[in-house]
Amino acid sequence: MTDAPVFHGGNLSWAEAKFGRPDRPWIDLSTGVNPWPYPIGSIRSDAWSRLPDARAESELREAAARYYRAPEVDCVVSAPGSQILIQLLPFLRPPSRVAVLSPTYGEHVPCWEAGGHHVTRIDDADLDRAWDVVVVTNPNNPDGVARSPMLLNEVAERLAARGGWLVIDEAFADTSPELSLAPQTNRPGRIVLRSFGKFFGLPGLRLGFVLAPAEITRRIAAALGPWAVSGPALEIGKRALCDSAWIERSRACLVTSASLLDDVLRAGGLEPTGYSPLFRLVEHSSAASVFQSLGDHGILVRNFSDQPNRLRLGLPSDDAALAKIRQALAASRVAVS
Amino acid sequence: MTDAPVFHGGNLSWAEAKFGRPDRPWIDLSTGVNPWPYPIGSIRSDAWSRLPDARAESELREAAARYYRAPEVDCVVSAPGSQILIQLLPFLRPPSRVAVLSPTYGEHVPCWEAGGHHVTRIDDADLDRAWDVVVVTNPNNPDGVARSPMLLNEVAERLAARGGWLVIDEAFADTSPELSLAPQTNRPGRIVLRSFGKFFGLPGLRLGFVLAPAEITRRIAAALGPWAVSGPALEIGKRALCDSAWIERSRACLVTSASLLDDVLRAGGLEPTGYSPLFRLVEHSSAASVFQSLGDHGILVRNFSDQPNRLRLGLPSDDAALAKIRQALAASRVAVS
Repeated sequence: MTDAPVFHGGNLSWAEAKFGRPDRPWIDLSTGVNPWPYPIGSIRSDAWSRLPDARAESELREAAARYYRAPEVDCVVSAPGSQILIQLLPFLRPPSRVAVLSPTYGEHVPCWEAGGHHVTRIDDADLDRAWDVVVVTNPNNPDGVARSPMLLNEVAERLAARGGWLVIDEAFADTSPELSLAPQTNRPGRIVLRSFGKFFGLPGLRLGFVLAPAEITRRIAAALGPWAVSGPALEIGKRALCDSAWIERSRACLVTSASLLDDVLRAGGLEPTGYSPLFRLVEHSSAASVFQSLGDHGILVRNFSDQPNRLRLGLPSDDAALAKIRQALAASRVAVS
Repeated sequence: MTDAPVFHGGNLSWAEAKFGRPDRPWIDLSTGVNPWPYPIGSIRSDAWSRLPDARAESELREAAARYYRAPEVDCVVSAPGSQILIQLLPFLRPPSRVAVLSPTYGEHVPCWEAGGHHVTRIDDADLDRAWDVVVVTNPNNPDGVARSPMLLNEVAERLAARGGWLVIDEAFADTSPELSLAPQTNRPGRIVLRSFGKFFGLPGLRLGFVLAPAEITRRIAAALGPWAVSGPALEIGKRALCDSAWIERSRACLVTSASLLDDVLRAGGLEPTGYSPLFRLVEHSSAASVFQSLGDHGILVRNFSDQPNRLRLGLPSDDAALAKIRQALAASRVAVS
């Protein structure tokens, strides 16, 4: 693992150091987080003032098992965010040959390296080689590419036959549940990571899940230890995962809003090349100057030092933000055209 | 690590299975948590709806460095509770000879064992032997025994001279800051663990800190990864750690209340033998029947399967609870006398 931390979206302190403080609040499109969060509502005072309760934790896991369609509740462990699971998994295996389908979320490679493994960035053509662990983000971040569950189940079967793991990071799968391998996580070799915060718009809550065969979830639960998830996260998480009406409405709303963003991007000369209801990817030779121009207008998007032609944009939360993007892209039109 | 999880206080689901549901809410004295929590107040919506901010995290660490009297902010890392630090530390060393000053908090031994170390339970006479790691809880849980910082600094110096660590779990040190080794954590071999939830009465928030030389805190921060602490914990934690007036008042209030509890215990035939402003320990040959009688009265205290003569009681939150304890002890008087 290199000493430099992985660069991430959402860091407005960084943005202000780079662009200065905008006149109006930042329009932060640098993460793929639902801009219309699940309403927090009231929180019982016990959730703060008592140790997280075993019963509340088990109710959260049951709600997660239903929402993610896990085959049984023993296949589900809750954690304070999916990031800490990405950090932890590499410590549960002896040194292994690990393949990460790339480019993808920037933490997978350094975390497996930090765990002492030999890590290779691969593309789809290399999925079948003799790896011990394959990591796939599905749908992928930042390009939204979806791999079929049938293909992934085949990869998992081959890995499982020699004690290997297929780790599927489903951080952006809430809007396409048909892609999920969660229903197969009682079968060997499947480890599914789920982020609560992105789709439910509450990344500050820190809540995530791992779904895997029970002999693996037992080891993960033991490594996390007791009271890993906060009382408020147990309570809000359960409420949100059970709220089918909100979930349905949000899926539809995100799809509509992403398509409005497409119109603005195209009008500004940027054709989307990667699609998720939680973000759009654009590729352009002038991406760097578009990034700068958006930043100068108080709009932060995600750029990638290793993919200089790409920008990822999360969804703007209202028409005013959409208009501001239109305006900033028009101003950088010379560079883009 | 054995498969059975360590038994802990605070589990009312367990208590109801054992004693049945009481007529009135449980009086839970089974943890050493301040029964008068720091007021939550309002929480900015951004704390939930955005990824925890780098600036907010650095402000929390600065507040913690001041409150714990760390020599510099680089010696401080925040975490989602001190438990996860107890889980993590053993994975940052090659297999070592680890000594845990015992009896103490039940998670230290199994967590070091799970990390592949050779663990020995020791008493004070063995502190000087050639260990790689010594774990001391100061003041100790459940007996409140305090070891002098001078003694502990000598142990740390000897350990540091051969690359070893003295891990000091200061979960109950908020009321006796003069015992803390935090001010020496820029010197080699000192690793101090601090729990936010106990003294501030908010264990559901999940917040804890490790204080250690910067080369160790860097490794811990890298292992925890980004966004380890929730947005609400960053905000509430900073506010609480800076609130000197509340801290002073709470220290005094806990001391007074613990002394009221002493009176009730003595009147019930139980002489306290272990003292902390956050709990009292009693030792009695009839501890098991007192535990049962209290449970039958809807009062949960902490018993210890490996120390059958001991009970630990946290502070009751009001006079009514105090009266209920008096009443329950009177009812079990035959057994105790």
